[in-house]
Order: sequence, then C-alpha cells, then structure tokens
Amino acid sequence: MKCAEGVEVRDLEELAINLDPIQAGGRLTADAMKAVIAYGDGYSVCDNCGKPFRLDFIKKPPIDVFHRDLAAWLNVDAVRVVPGARRGFQAVAHTFVGEGDPVLLTSLSHYTAFLAVEESRGVPLEIPASTGHIVTADAAAAKIEEATRTYGRPPALLIVDHVDYQYGNVHEVQGIARVAHQYDVKVLYNGAYTIGILPVDAKALGVDFVVGSGHKSMAAPAPSGVLGTREEYAKQLFRTTAVQGDVTGRKFGVKEVEMMGCTLMGVTLLGMIASFPHVRERTKQWEDELRRGSVVTGALRSIEGTRISSEYPRKHTLTRVDTTQSFDKVAQTHKKRGFFLTSALKEHGIVGILPGATKVWKFNTYGLSETQVRHVADAFRAIAEANGLAVS
Amino acid sequence: MKCAEGVEVRDLEELAINLDPIQAGGRLTADAMKAVIAYGDGYSVCDNCGKPFRLDFIKKPPIDVFHRDLAAWLNVDAVRVVPGARRGFQAVAHTFVGEGDPVLLTSLSHYTAFLAVEESRGVPLEIPASTGHIVTADAAAAKIEEATRTYGRPPALLIVDHVDYQYGNVHEVQGIARVAHQYDVKVLYNGAYTIGILPVDAKALGVDFVVGSGHKSMAAPAPSGVLGTREEYAKQLFRTTAVQGDVTGRKFGVKEVEMMGCTLMGVTLLGMIASFPHVRERTKQWEDELRRGSVVTGALRSIEGTRISSEYPRKHTLTRVDTTQSFDKVAQTHKKRGFFLTSALKEHGIVGILPGATKVWKFNTYGLSETQVRHVADAFRAIAEANGLAVS
Repeated sequence: MKCAEGVEVRDLEELAINLDPIQAGGRLTADAMKAVIAYGDGYSVCDNCGKPFRLDFIKKPPIDVFHRDLAAWLNVDAVRVVPGARRGFQAVAHTFVGEGDPVLLTSLSHYTAFLAVEESRGVPLEIPASTGHIVTADAAAAKIEEATRTYGRPPALLIVDHVDYQYGNVHEVQGIARVAHQYDVKVLYNGAYTIGILPVDAKALGVDFVVGSGHKSMAAPAPSGVLGTREEYAKQLFRTTAVQGDVTGRKFGVKEVEMMGCTLMGVTLLGMIASFPHVRERTKQWEDELRRGSVVTGALRSIEGTRISSEYPRKHTLTRVDTTQSFDKVAQTHKKRGFFLTSALKEHGIVGILPGATKVWKFNTYGLSETQVRHVADAFRAIAEANGLAVS
Repeated sequence: MKCAEGVEVRDLEELAINLDPIQAGGRLTADAMKAVIAYGDGYSVCDNCGKPFRLDFIKKPPIDVFHRDLAAWLNVDAVRVVPGARRGFQAVAHTFVGEGDPVLLTSLSHYTAFLAVEESRGVPLEIPASTGHIVTADAAAAKIEEATRTYGRPPALLIVDHVDYQYGNVHEVQGIARVAHQYDVKVLYNGAYTIGILPVDAKALGVDFVVGSGHKSMAAPAPSGVLGTREEYAKQLFRTTAVQGDVTGRKFGVKEVEMMGCTLMGVTLLGMIASFPHVRERTKQWEDELRRGSVVTGALRSIEGTRISSEYPRKHTLTRVDTTQSFDKVAQTHKKRGFFLTSALKEHGIVGILPGATKVWKFNTYGLSETQVRHVADAFRAIAEANGLAVS
C-alpha cells in the first residue's frame, strides 16, 4: 500500500518486533501520534505567537510550560529544543571552541560529535576507552594532561556519551566531569541514549551541557532534540543577536544566534511535548526494561560460542554481541550465507538487525513487552538449534 | 478537544480561512498527511539504510530519487534537505564567510539571514531597497563597491530574497546576480517564499546557492528546507568529513560537515517527498493564485483610505496593506479598539491577521479557492461598510 507517489506505507513497527539499535526509543507514543496528526502542517505552532516572537515563549500550545518542565526534569537552568542532538553539539562547539582548539571526546563517541568539532575548526582528540570498553575518569585526566601539554592550553570542551552507541556501555560521566572541572574543562553530556530512557540529573552528574535526542530516545519525530545548560553558560550559549541593519537600524530582539531563531516550529516539537508525560514516567521503569533486556542477552549467552561484547551484566538495552564463533560459523556453509540469520529472524517476525550480519552486531530491546522479549529469546535459541548450535 | 495532556487539537485550518502570512504554503497536502502518519516514528526512514549510510542514498523510501528530482526541478547540480531554510543559510555562511568578512543582504532581509552571518562572525550590510521597496541591481552594485572600499575586499557573499517577507515584493534577483558576479561575489538566493510556490530555475536566475523552506512553502512539516548549489561550489559546501580519531584511527566516510551528517530522518522529509509531485504541479498554477489574490487586494483598495503598501499590481500573494486611514480610524472609537478588525474577521470565519493590527499588516491568500477569496473580499467590504467606511 502506498501513502504517496512512489512511497510505501511504513508498517514495520506494526508487523514485526523491531530490534533496531537506533529506532527503539523514538517510536511515537499514541499521544504523540495524535499530536502529529493535529500539528502536521508546516508552521503549526505559530497560530498564537506574540511578542517577543520566539518559540519558547508561546503559550498556546503550552510550549513555554514544556520548556520549564523539561528544564526541571533534566535539572538544568535553561533548555532549548533543537533539530537533533547533533545541532546541540554544534551550538555548544560553535560557542566555546575556537580554531585549532583541542576538544576531547572518546574512542566510542558518535560521528556527530566529531563533525561538531570539525565544523567549529577544533581538533578532536579521543579519550581511550578501557579494554572493557569503558571510558574512565582516569583516562580522561590523562588525556586532558596530554592535550594540554601538546596544545599549550587545556581542551576547550570535553564531550562524553553517558551511554555510547557502539557497546551501549555506561561511562564514568560523574567522575569525568569532576576531573575535567579540576582542569577547567567544560563538559558536554551526550544523552542521546539516556535522556528519555533513564533518569538524568545534570547537576547530580556535574556536567555543564546536556544534549538529548527526540527521535532517538524521547518518542518524538525527527529531527528533534534538547539542549540544556547551567546558568553560568546560558548567556553565552543562548546569546541573543547583537547585529543591526546598517541601513535600516533594525535589531532582531531576543532571537538566539546559535538557535538561528526558532527551531522546531511544528510537528516535531508537538510530538515531543505530547510524549513528554509518558517519557517522564517510562524513565522510572528503567529497571524493568533492563530486566526484560536480560531475557534476550541471557538467551544469546546460552548459545555456544556467543559472547556479549558489551559490559555484562547489561546496564542498557542497546547491546553488542559477538557471534563469530556461533552464527557466523553457520553462515560459512549455509546456502543463504550471512543472510541466514536475519532471514530466519524475519520468519520469527523479528527485524532490525543489519542484514547479513553474523559476526558482530547490535540490537536494542527497549520498549519490548515481557511477551515480546520471551518471543525474541526463544527465536534466537530456536534458530541456533535448527542450525546445529548447542544451547545450554 | 485535547490531543495530548494540556495540548488542544489544532483545528484552525479546518474551521476557518487562514490568511496568516507565513503559514499559507506550509499546509500539508493529503498525501503528506498520510506520509506523516506512516512515518511519524523518530528514525522512520532508516529501516533500509545501508552503505554508505547517508540519508540521500536511501532507496526505500525513495529518498535518493527525490534528491535527483529536486535538483532537476530547481536546476541545481547538487541538493540536500536541511532543517529549515535558516540551516541552509548557516551552512553557506559557515563555509564561505570568515571572521570580519562583509556580507551583503538587503534592507528587507529576514532575520535568519542576519543570524547566519552573525553566527559565522561576518558583518551584515544591507543593500537599501528603493522607495518602492524593490531591491535593484544598481543598488546592489553600489553597495558592493561601498563595502569593498570600506573592507578592502569584496563581500564574501550576497544573500537576496527573491520575494521578501515584509512586502512580498519581487526583487531583481537576476540582475543582482549578474552584477555580483562581475565583482566576484557569490549569490545566495533565498526562496523561502518562492520555492514550492512559483517556478524557480537557479541557473536561469544565475545564482550560486538556492535555499527553500519546506514548512513555509513546500507543504511539508517543520523544520524542513532545501539547499542547492552549482557544481563549482558543491565540493566546498557539501565537503565530507576530514577528521580522524587520534586513538582509534576512525574516519567517518561520506558524512558532510555542514549537514552534520544526516538531516531529516523521518516525518519532515517524508512529508516533503509526499507533497513534492503536488508542489511541482502547483507552481505551474501560479498565475491563477495571483488572480485569486487580486480579488482580495481589489476589495481592500475599494475601501476608502486603504492602501496596498506592497508593489501593485501584486506579483505575490503575500501582501502588506496600510489601513491607517481606514480601519485604524474606526479603531480609535470602536469599543474593541484595535481588536475590532480581527474580531470582525473571525465572525466571518477568517483568521491569521495579527490580533489588534489595524495600521499596517500582512496577509497571504496563497492556496485559497475562488469561493474563499470571494468570501474574504466580501468580508472586508462588509466590515468596512458596517463601520462607516465608504466602499467604492
């Protein structure tokens, strides 16, 4: 069935259990879907925009209230919505990173953090993760010292993922923030896999900037995200325009330079707002999510030769698994080769694993029900057994 | 009726005729609404993303085909989608404008063009519009010379609106591009009020960059927009990442620095794609839109003391009107003061004029049917007569 010329209706979430690592936290809530239908039109939130003519001041729909609630929830002094987490990185980097400035990120950082540094003409330097794929405070301290020696000044910024996209591991954010501040280095917290998923308290973590993704983890449409900071940096990061028309003498009021004025003027923001009460609640059920996730990792570990590459026990539902010694051995002789696994999963109604992957791959059980994780666990075991792998 | 906690359903477009100046071209088509429902979830377009893992290469849904069709339609060599026209300005300014560089825009430019220059640390300078509020090639040449004398180098960029947001006037883009190129100045065409509304041919206009707005003029959800350029500049503007992880040796493939990687990963892009065939067709009906618009401007001009501030006859459906000598006189003694006009319009089922405005205000008839423009014209005349203004 087509929804437009040449465009098939997307019904993947309705027809299958989706384990895609990046899509799990961005599925809309029912309220968000209703809001998306009601606010689909372009500038749909601008009906009642009055002075001072800025998105976060709009009262109807209650965008102003949402900003206050969001700031309180994240425990930041100021918050804005942005078109994706990457645009939050960009705003921070562009404000605080100068040409040639060293900027620390980690050996597990997402490419968008690198791009933000590159776009600001800084020099990205990776804090190496441990052999267990954890970024530690000690490693951060060592890298800060090394960078300071090399560049003759401390890093302009340190960007750290609370949970990384490669292993879904939890890194020492609090400790890293503490040592970074000892060297006067500002810390940007990348919460793309945490904000909207598990409880996040910026002040308790001791970070200076927090960035989250609406479409990745807040059950919102793309592109959307959040950017928060403490009072100390809000004036710089959210500085209002200072230029003036040389002919007309025009000024541009309270428009914020790094935000480029208003950011999410319609469906994206309203989806995020509609999901927010549900998102706030679901973060409190994080332990249940982990428990359900362990049903699947447990099943995988019961298949001979299969290894969870992520830290174990799991502290996040995004998991990297190494099946080089199990499913990949099957692939060597299977008539479908590497595609046998994703093909077999599909027969069980399970999708979202990179097609053809049998060596090292990722999955995310976030949002699955008890019945669904049991179905996934059984499917993995059944596929293993059907292909001659021992299951304990 | 609420669509989510604290959020009223938006039914303005269903219940009234909306003359809002910025919303007219962004109302979704029926196909876009269907696509929005099908692709509401966060990363909804990423189901079939494979190597080289970039949005504009995705084949299903046919995002790659859309990019090719879009480039052909605008007559540019390369095109990308961006989260709003402003993010297109930002990418161009950030690539070609250095600290302290003079950049020309016009005395009628939108604030987002100023912000893009400010964010890139350039110096915005306005080309003055004529007394008739038209930006001419002669005025552009004079300002280029003045800026070159003052700054010791030609402007790094010239940004010109084809149709401006204040008067909806059509400016001498082709002539401005010609003189700018004589001085080796690059030209960015702001098509926020034209791309998706009337035919635009970048090469015929002779401009180097074109920027359009999805949510303003392409019947797409917010934030969305397009950015196109000619081959000469595509490599710089859409340059791919050149940084590398110092520890891991990681590179980031074909991700583009100014795009921050992928841009519109879901509902915004699919809305734009679904509307595209309709948008392409509607630009061919532009003369009909102008004719329908003239029904309303004609009615306003028939009210004593009322003056169309925009150029006349109208060449765009966004119009600025001066009613200081008509409706504002009524407001002086009316019990509802300045709110009488918007209140009276509302009784006629017409919304979208800034509440309280009776002096100088704007409206846009884009997309209204024959019956609707006649209703609007009759309403203005009836309100005038009911308040003692002569109607000829």
